[in-house]
Amino acid sequence: MTHPSVIRPRDHAVFSPQKMGKSTIFESSRLLVGLNAFEPGQEHALHAHAGQDKVYQVVEGEGLFLLEGRELPMRAGDLLVAPENVAHGVRNSGTSRLLVLAILAPAPHK
Amino acid sequence: MTHPSVIRPRDHAVFSPQKMGKSTIFESSRLLVGLNAFEPGQEHALHAHAGQDKVYQVVEGEGLFLLEGRELPMRAGDLLVAPENVAHGVRNSGTSRLLVLAILAPAPHK
Repeated sequence: MTHPSVIRPRDHAVFSPQKMGKSTIFESSRLLVGLNAFEPGQEHALHAHAGQDKVYQVVEGEGLFLLEGRELPMRAGDLLVAPENVAHGVRNSGTSRLLVLAILAPAPHK
Repeated sequence: MTHPSVIRPRDHAVFSPQKMGKSTIFESSRLLVGLNAFEPGQEHALHAHAGQDKVYQVVEGEGLFLLEGRELPMRAGDLLVAPENVAHGVRNSGTSRLLVLAILAPAPHK
């Protein structure tokens, strides 16, 4: 997964009818670049990471991002940072698919 | 710089007539989320980072990204990963501004 070429995030999206789909674009011990794919109505419940910072970016669609007890509407191109220990989550409150880049540093331990 | 709110990367861009402009969106010891802003003709020369992985994403414009001796044309939304020790650079070969998210993990030492 060194990807020495151009990556179009949409090409890596995995949607699932059961729950949020996850896929990995790049992973090292330092960095995980993944995609979270939400059908309408799907969500990623509030959670937090000790010792890891996360960056979300909306690739397509729109949704509500939960951060520090607030609900923030976000659309394509918008970024959100969840520093370590800050609870965060995502809800696809719209009627179309929501695709989100989720970048985590360092990567989770295997 | 905890940014507990939605970030529109364009709002943080700093362009400079002299050379590539740099700005920081978020920084911790684990993660640096920055912007590299290129006027037409500006470039970031080939360089590499030991022990750090970088992700580029084009926010607006288009340019040539250098990676492992190759020149890769990229446009808005495209991602590129430069794992540690892999030489990389950027050249705005177009006629409009090029704005690039540059995410580095871990962040450089101060």
